[in-house]
Amino acid sequence: MPFGSYWQREEIMPLNQLEELRVKRLRWVVRRAYDNVPFYRKKMREMGITPHDIRRIDDVVKLPFTTKDDLRANYPFGLVAVDKSELVRIHMSSGTSGKPKVVAYTERDLENWINMVARCLYMIGVRKEDVFQNLVSYTLFTGGLGFHYAAERIGAMVVPTGTGNTEKQLQYMVDFGTTAIHATPSYALRIKEVAEEKGIDTQNLPLRIGCFGAEPWSDNTRKRLEEAFDLKAFDSYGLSEMNGPGVAFECEEQNGLHIWHDHYLVEIVDPETGEQLGEGEKGELVLTPLTKEAMPLLRYRTGDITYLMGFDRCSCGRTHPKIHRIIGRADDMIVVRGINVYPSQIEHVLMNLPEVGDHFQVVITRNGSLDEITVRVEMRDEIFTGELRDFSRIRNNVMRALQKELNIRVNVDLVEKGTLERFEGKAKRVLDLRKEL
Amino acid sequence: MPFGSYWQREEIMPLNQLEELRVKRLRWVVRRAYDNVPFYRKKMREMGITPHDIRRIDDVVKLPFTTKDDLRANYPFGLVAVDKSELVRIHMSSGTSGKPKVVAYTERDLENWINMVARCLYMIGVRKEDVFQNLVSYTLFTGGLGFHYAAERIGAMVVPTGTGNTEKQLQYMVDFGTTAIHATPSYALRIKEVAEEKGIDTQNLPLRIGCFGAEPWSDNTRKRLEEAFDLKAFDSYGLSEMNGPGVAFECEEQNGLHIWHDHYLVEIVDPETGEQLGEGEKGELVLTPLTKEAMPLLRYRTGDITYLMGFDRCSCGRTHPKIHRIIGRADDMIVVRGINVYPSQIEHVLMNLPEVGDHFQVVITRNGSLDEITVRVEMRDEIFTGELRDFSRIRNNVMRALQKELNIRVNVDLVEKGTLERFEGKAKRVLDLRKEL
Repeated sequence: MPFGSYWQREEIMPLNQLEELRVKRLRWVVRRAYDNVPFYRKKMREMGITPHDIRRIDDVVKLPFTTKDDLRANYPFGLVAVDKSELVRIHMSSGTSGKPKVVAYTERDLENWINMVARCLYMIGVRKEDVFQNLVSYTLFTGGLGFHYAAERIGAMVVPTGTGNTEKQLQYMVDFGTTAIHATPSYALRIKEVAEEKGIDTQNLPLRIGCFGAEPWSDNTRKRLEEAFDLKAFDSYGLSEMNGPGVAFECEEQNGLHIWHDHYLVEIVDPETGEQLGEGEKGELVLTPLTKEAMPLLRYRTGDITYLMGFDRCSCGRTHPKIHRIIGRADDMIVVRGINVYPSQIEHVLMNLPEVGDHFQVVITRNGSLDEITVRVEMRDEIFTGELRDFSRIRNNVMRALQKELNIRVNVDLVEKGTLERFEGKAKRVLDLRKEL
Repeated sequence: MPFGSYWQREEIMPLNQLEELRVKRLRWVVRRAYDNVPFYRKKMREMGITPHDIRRIDDVVKLPFTTKDDLRANYPFGLVAVDKSELVRIHMSSGTSGKPKVVAYTERDLENWINMVARCLYMIGVRKEDVFQNLVSYTLFTGGLGFHYAAERIGAMVVPTGTGNTEKQLQYMVDFGTTAIHATPSYALRIKEVAEEKGIDTQNLPLRIGCFGAEPWSDNTRKRLEEAFDLKAFDSYGLSEMNGPGVAFECEEQNGLHIWHDHYLVEIVDPETGEQLGEGEKGELVLTPLTKEAMPLLRYRTGDITYLMGFDRCSCGRTHPKIHRIIGRADDMIVVRGINVYPSQIEHVLMNLPEVGDHFQVVITRNGSLDEITVRVEMRDEIFTGELRDFSRIRNNVMRALQKELNIRVNVDLVEKGTLERFEGKAKRVLDLRKEL
């Protein structure tokens, strides 16, 4: 039930009330973890603390961290705090190797989750009159069902297409008059490409809102998405361990993502030392969900790099703080000759160059004892037909721009449009051939 | 909210009350179609009738039929009776050719649908303690989300795996302690096969309930499924035009499917003449949904062949009539030398022969002016290694059994296990090569 131009009144809760609620919830969740999850009881006992030691928000630093490996080691239900009969849903994260990370939900967890995603959609203007096409995987991935339930709750007409069959997807957009979409940015750019092949003018579709998530993307990609579909593009952040999407989301300002402070306790820590960092300092996002019944994780290390943008009230009126869009994911970070490189930095540079198309790939090789980084870049069609001289000029431009951003020598291969693999879900941008040696 | 051993009290509504409710609803739905869908107003005017002419259940025969072609011709929203802003969901049937059949739902339609599928699941014993693994496609196919929402409503732990990745699916069954599954019968048999390859004993899984639908299957297949997984196998019937699954379902008796009489008006008609047939007479199932707000279809020709099993109260206590399991789908019917053959008849015969494996294919060819039907049959491993003489004896057995059932000469090819294609969704059993001439 909307509350004015907000989905829930908690979005504009006065800061002192919000703080009170957060303290209450933090104590509740710590008690829950301690009483019902042997893993946490043991850890807290080893650290010499009990739930009584957690009285204020600042006390969170006394609590143990939880890592992705902890989740894997406790597969499938080791961190669950309720009787199995209370669980109503299982999701799994797309584990690249080893055991998957299982997340579990009670009925109330789902209710909270639906409302958090609904807050996000309502915040960017999705209403019951909208036609919401959900172009991400359903089933075990949280992105599909997470957005599906929320858009339905708002009363939008949900078109649950999932990924794949891009031509048909485009046809449905036309036939159903789709006004809002949810996709990974790379799949959206792929859709635009197919539309061009089919002669469908994506700028003339009734689309007005795009939610893009599951991979970090930059403001330069935003410009491309907004131009391609003539819509407003919003950054969506979430992870299955924190329910799924709906953890943080851009408001109409498109400047930072509101993180739902009544449901998540936010910290930024130094990835090496685990020390809490202050406002504006870049580090790893650490989240403690404050309302999760089924799996009350404490100080979860997301591996995502960002910073807190400060607590100034946003012009949208929401009292929940903002984080900067994800700068990189620790999992995606490449170390080349001792220097940390995020694919999102490369994306940021490339998407700002008009000659460069929408697709690229990063290849890391080892030449003797030296790491080499090569960025394969698709050119726009109209550029590629140019003279050889031009070609070499563009290549130098790209190389210089990348080297300036990354502080490292980079090889650049210009390739024809359509050369590189396309993705319907999360794009796999990095090919690290060093591992195969 | 369960009502004793029933999900909803309507399941055991006394017949006179049920009849009263049905008449009221029929009049409501006819009025709705007439007032809001130009297609029906035009048709009814041409037939010289108005909603006032529909006063009793028997008056349904005065109404026009609706066909699959009508749905296609009115793609996408021509038959929708509400403002588009009232729609909250779109599904589509897997149209094999031409335009897809779009179905639309209001919030109330979804609520009714969820409860109908929940009735079915609750009827066969699914409870909040169960782990329900949903092994069918999500997204636009109604089978996935239809069962998902209903199992969740009951409070079971839903594992939304979808199809594909059969080895992992098996691992989840083991790891999560899956007690109930939903799949097509052919995918279930495929899972059993993969389990054998991996050395997983499917009889020792905690499975106890199986819901099988989306393709017609026989009692002989039931025996195989029940033995393979040591569970009780129930037949699920539905179609997207009638919301999806949850139209009719077997109760614990496993003898006929209760069709929810408060939501669907059932007729059996002669497929040629459209004349209503009586109890026990085989014909085409025609359904009029009595509660659909978004798309109030009148007398929808399902193309499915079955018969009404009579109105004797079932030992389960439900007052809703039963239909026999689907004998064949008009769409699947093959005409060979003037004789109608349903793949389900062939399945029925083969699954009763112990030498025969779980997979077969029907190939139709034209030899000059003569149609030929060849059934390719996978043998069980242990049989195939036998002597040539034995081999020929089995082939003759299969041939004789098929000819007895179909009244037509049939070629039989015995093939090794693993030769024929496997399916994760609806099996494609028939390869009609005549069409390619």
